[in-house]
Amino acid sequence: MPERKGQYTVTLSSRPTILGYAAVVGKREGEGPLGRYFDMIFEDTTLGEKTWEKAESALQREAFTRAMNKAGMSPSQLNYLFAGDLLNQSIASTFGMREYGVPMLGQFGACSTMAQTLALSAIFVDSGAADLCCAVTSSHFCSAERQFRFPLEYGGQRPQTAQWTATASGAAVVGMGGSGVKIAAATIGRITDLGITDANNMGAAMAPAAADTLATFFQDTATKPDDYDLIITGDLAAVGSDLLRQLSERKGYPLGANYTDCGLLIYDRNKQDVHAGGSGCGCSAAVLCSYLLGKMEQGELKSVLFIGTGALMSPTSSQQGESIPGIAHLVHLVAGGA
Amino acid sequence: MPERKGQYTVTLSSRPTILGYAAVVGKREGEGPLGRYFDMIFEDTTLGEKTWEKAESALQREAFTRAMNKAGMSPSQLNYLFAGDLLNQSIASTFGMREYGVPMLGQFGACSTMAQTLALSAIFVDSGAADLCCAVTSSHFCSAERQFRFPLEYGGQRPQTAQWTATASGAAVVGMGGSGVKIAAATIGRITDLGITDANNMGAAMAPAAADTLATFFQDTATKPDDYDLIITGDLAAVGSDLLRQLSERKGYPLGANYTDCGLLIYDRNKQDVHAGGSGCGCSAAVLCSYLLGKMEQGELKSVLFIGTGALMSPTSSQQGESIPGIAHLVHLVAGGA
Repeated sequence: MPERKGQYTVTLSSRPTILGYAAVVGKREGEGPLGRYFDMIFEDTTLGEKTWEKAESALQREAFTRAMNKAGMSPSQLNYLFAGDLLNQSIASTFGMREYGVPMLGQFGACSTMAQTLALSAIFVDSGAADLCCAVTSSHFCSAERQFRFPLEYGGQRPQTAQWTATASGAAVVGMGGSGVKIAAATIGRITDLGITDANNMGAAMAPAAADTLATFFQDTATKPDDYDLIITGDLAAVGSDLLRQLSERKGYPLGANYTDCGLLIYDRNKQDVHAGGSGCGCSAAVLCSYLLGKMEQGELKSVLFIGTGALMSPTSSQQGESIPGIAHLVHLVAGGA
Repeated sequence: MPERKGQYTVTLSSRPTILGYAAVVGKREGEGPLGRYFDMIFEDTTLGEKTWEKAESALQREAFTRAMNKAGMSPSQLNYLFAGDLLNQSIASTFGMREYGVPMLGQFGACSTMAQTLALSAIFVDSGAADLCCAVTSSHFCSAERQFRFPLEYGGQRPQTAQWTATASGAAVVGMGGSGVKIAAATIGRITDLGITDANNMGAAMAPAAADTLATFFQDTATKPDDYDLIITGDLAAVGSDLLRQLSERKGYPLGANYTDCGLLIYDRNKQDVHAGGSGCGCSAAVLCSYLLGKMEQGELKSVLFIGTGALMSPTSSQQGESIPGIAHLVHLVAGGA
């Protein structure tokens, strides 16, 4: 049964389990430090499809079917699917998940979408509204560049604060029982907007939201950063994660060596030309659904805060001079035996 | 407590209440048959804003603040907000709701979004995950035309099967207790795609999804169309609602005189040049949050099935030759004394 702690945090007394998970990525992500943890690396990032958008849908299908297989479940056993992506009208999810005949609740939280879909899946299972849910998100460098920035052929230069949208998808199947990683709590974030207008510095736009959600969670649960083996945001990258450290310290919750960011883990910034680091719905999804859940299953990490961070802007809002609102949703994960 | 009936339907044993609701619309909607039911009619559909997108955000703020006031609640009392719209990256909702500091879960179900946000609000309240939620959606003719079709200045001709995107927003505040309309159950829909590719005939693309969700609900609850005072889709309009009647009959659930569609109610098709009828996230939201909930509060309707229907396409998917997947989510509403 979900139980409210404070106003914005829910603890889940039955602790729903991640029964299966999978992450699939593109070539560049496969060449990064986490390469060996992914279920599949596509050297051809078209995945044999005619457009980048269709390639992103194919990525979602790959992550979804692999996660379902690893959970030993078929799509017909699912009650609800929570899916989302960065594309206009969430078409990567719609066309990716169209063929499975599963009830779908489309989610939009920009790059926070993996945390959002996972939180909703867990709340549904814990409440009895569902026995089995799946959370899936994706992003693709080429579909995101075309939509949010410039056509690839234009060869636009990117400032060092810019993040690199990961070509990646992650999926997690949530149900009851089993020895997998459990979902203990979730905090849903508020929109936070400090007036950042630079679409090439989204880490700075999202950091205040992450700081707000983290402080809310610590207050609601009467805990502190040191109580967790790992606190991982996704994706603030270099600029945003430095800023989060400053903001959290100012709120009385200094983050120590147990803090990192999915956008910093997925690429080697010294060897790979990704500027500030990774971003995109698929980045935090792929890091969660490979390396992170793997480390938890192996007992190397027992209690983890996973905070998805999203920049809720569009090219239209930026063109109209709007600042970039940020949002961050938190999920508290605990190892099966913890 | 949510309890599953069949695989895709949830009954809500505590029957969460719609504590307050409001609908605000543009000039054309105000001139339609439901004009006197709306909380506010904006003769100037810019609402004094500089862009159509900002005007749509302002519409959401108007519906949201009026619904909260009517519920006697302030935004600081809300636990979660479920909001969505048709614009790229849901910016009408993001920028509309930015200032209230309420945790937000962005939803995308195209024109089914009002049913989706209402279902999620009710499930959260019934499960104990929240005490107070708000569901809000919007659409604006001018922002939708610019994004999905042609610039207004182009003056493109529309075929008779085309629907008219309503300039409207509706909001419903969901909590426990009180004498308001109750939410008894919800069925989450599956993506249904019969291969319609005509973006000017979205009613036909959505009707199969509505037929599927309705049949699922009737099966899961062992009820039939005659058991309800009103079955209302939003928004299939003229073409789609005729098709739904045929499809439902074929599935063994013929719809009688107790069936109608929000897109048929909001305009007078004989006097207003709207072709097949209304559409847009805001159409069903505004009809629900004015006329429909009003009739239920007055006891004229006791048991109503409200089915939001969405066309999950984007201009990009249409340009790439994709068909239009449909989805439909159902909410079962009962009058306070029922």
